[in-house]
Amino acid sequence: MISIDAMGGDIGPTVTVAGVAQVLGRGADSTHFLLHGDKAALTEMLDRFPRLCDRVEIRPSDSVVAMDAKPAHAMRRGRGSSMWNAIACVQSGEAAAAVSAGNTGALMAISRLILRMVGALDRPALVANWPTLKGATSVLDVGANVVCDAERLVEFAIMGAAYHRAVHDLPRPRVGLLNIGTEHDKGHEEVKDADRILRAASFAFDYLGFVEGDDIAKGSADVIVTDGFTGNVALKTAEGLARFFRAELRATFTDSLNGKLGALLARRSLRAMAARLDPGSINGSPFLGLNGVVVKSHGGADANGFANAVRLAADLGRRDFAPTLARELERLAPARSAAASL
Amino acid sequence: MISIDAMGGDIGPTVTVAGVAQVLGRGADSTHFLLHGDKAALTEMLDRFPRLCDRVEIRPSDSVVAMDAKPAHAMRRGRGSSMWNAIACVQSGEAAAAVSAGNTGALMAISRLILRMVGALDRPALVANWPTLKGATSVLDVGANVVCDAERLVEFAIMGAAYHRAVHDLPRPRVGLLNIGTEHDKGHEEVKDADRILRAASFAFDYLGFVEGDDIAKGSADVIVTDGFTGNVALKTAEGLARFFRAELRATFTDSLNGKLGALLARRSLRAMAARLDPGSINGSPFLGLNGVVVKSHGGADANGFANAVRLAADLGRRDFAPTLARELERLAPARSAAASL
Repeated sequence: MISIDAMGGDIGPTVTVAGVAQVLGRGADSTHFLLHGDKAALTEMLDRFPRLCDRVEIRPSDSVVAMDAKPAHAMRRGRGSSMWNAIACVQSGEAAAAVSAGNTGALMAISRLILRMVGALDRPALVANWPTLKGATSVLDVGANVVCDAERLVEFAIMGAAYHRAVHDLPRPRVGLLNIGTEHDKGHEEVKDADRILRAASFAFDYLGFVEGDDIAKGSADVIVTDGFTGNVALKTAEGLARFFRAELRATFTDSLNGKLGALLARRSLRAMAARLDPGSINGSPFLGLNGVVVKSHGGADANGFANAVRLAADLGRRDFAPTLARELERLAPARSAAASL
Repeated sequence: MISIDAMGGDIGPTVTVAGVAQVLGRGADSTHFLLHGDKAALTEMLDRFPRLCDRVEIRPSDSVVAMDAKPAHAMRRGRGSSMWNAIACVQSGEAAAAVSAGNTGALMAISRLILRMVGALDRPALVANWPTLKGATSVLDVGANVVCDAERLVEFAIMGAAYHRAVHDLPRPRVGLLNIGTEHDKGHEEVKDADRILRAASFAFDYLGFVEGDDIAKGSADVIVTDGFTGNVALKTAEGLARFFRAELRATFTDSLNGKLGALLARRSLRAMAARLDPGSINGSPFLGLNGVVVKSHGGADANGFANAVRLAADLGRRDFAPTLARELERLAPARSAAASL
């Protein structure tokens, strides 16, 4: 069972219900869904997708967390909202995972409040699924943890590896630590200390050492670890550059008759490229470190993109991801003392 | 007079002398050059460009700073090298600027030693000239200053604005401070404090407040300020992504006969796009904050790219950039106290 905040996102039910319909449309999947939100709006949307009826249950909720609500306000006033109820169903065990395209800060605050963090973790880490020359790299944290000490970075490595293993079926992901050079003396104290801890202990992944910004798109590592400030800037810089390239490409193929004819001839190849680079195809960022699975969809995602976030949540839910993560994190304490004794 | 470390870079004189020849080839320019390096190698290269003879003087030097030399080693042993001598000519006033494609760390260390920093500055800032939808944005620091407090960030704003004004003839550049959101409460203490100082005082630029990673490629600001860790990661992430896009584009236009025909038809437009996106066209990063102009060329730049770095150095040299920068930096102290009294 997957719990959906059907009101979240820039658009709401039109996208979320159509996204769920896409996931079920694939057939073999036997997942059931709880749709939290405004009863009338959801009933109307479900009427458009009659075959959803026996797999989807509407759970009416009174309110919606606004896209611009402050996290503290959402925590105080969010009870009974579609977002709150979606997460509460994970806490009660009724659902294996929750998905929301709503306000990121509010979703994180409410998730922490209801589900609590694993062990001594402070805040969830946000993962980006980054398309690369070799497939996809999991990059974290991309914005939740602005200031990170060495242990925080090591926790990201453990959680990122567990996540990548679960999603990509890769037994020992290769993990890199983002820095401004690959020599041992590069970077600030936090990355140097994290490097020492990661080298000293044995985790369920292969630690590659330092990697640099250009290693992300190269696919040099399966998991790349950084603080939430750097990760957020890198991710948004890349998103901006991707838009820049699309604009350049559009200009190139509309600036002359030959350009237009060329684009017409190559249209199948160009469409295939556009599909490979479609941000919706990698939509869905899990909040790592919670006692339960919560996946954030981009607020502006279309039905296609929302469906991908839902598939990711279903996948993580099936794999019993949250308890696995808790077990992996128990390896940090011995690693820390091994590094300290060096 | 421009002073050239003719031995620096992955290739050396073949590129540096050909680059200088390109600059002089444009005609109207009356710049003269000092070429520092191995006399035999430079004489041989100059024989290929006979028209350079009356504009170029060879200054023989005994040694070359290795591309992988440690900065500390280069400072102790670099005296008499082509890099050292190129910078010494700026210190003596013989040259208005120096250019090197050599080892970045060594170039920075030797530049600091010989030219000294302006005022109380600690290390130079490295600027990237970032192509955007609207032209070019100056992004700093991109790697020299790993840890930056609020005052360091404000210094970057002052220096970046002075640089952008000199290079782009823009009287009041718009300066943004890179963060993970645009609200006042976003980010770590250093960016929040820098934001307060920048708001409290009046500088010779327009302060826009916080900008995010995707604002870089948008061209939302003329100058974007960040610490050297984040800036370096953002720059290298973008470089990696640019290579990724080029690979995708190549694959798209070679994967089918129609794709190839399309590329053939659109070849003029594609070539124009490649020229717009050519990293060489933006080659040349000045070290800001020195008592003198030193421009770093990319080690792997070709003659075209090196020529662009030389033009940038000549431009900054002509504009009396270093003294202007020193004057601008004097505005920091009143700004700091204005912010403290708020």
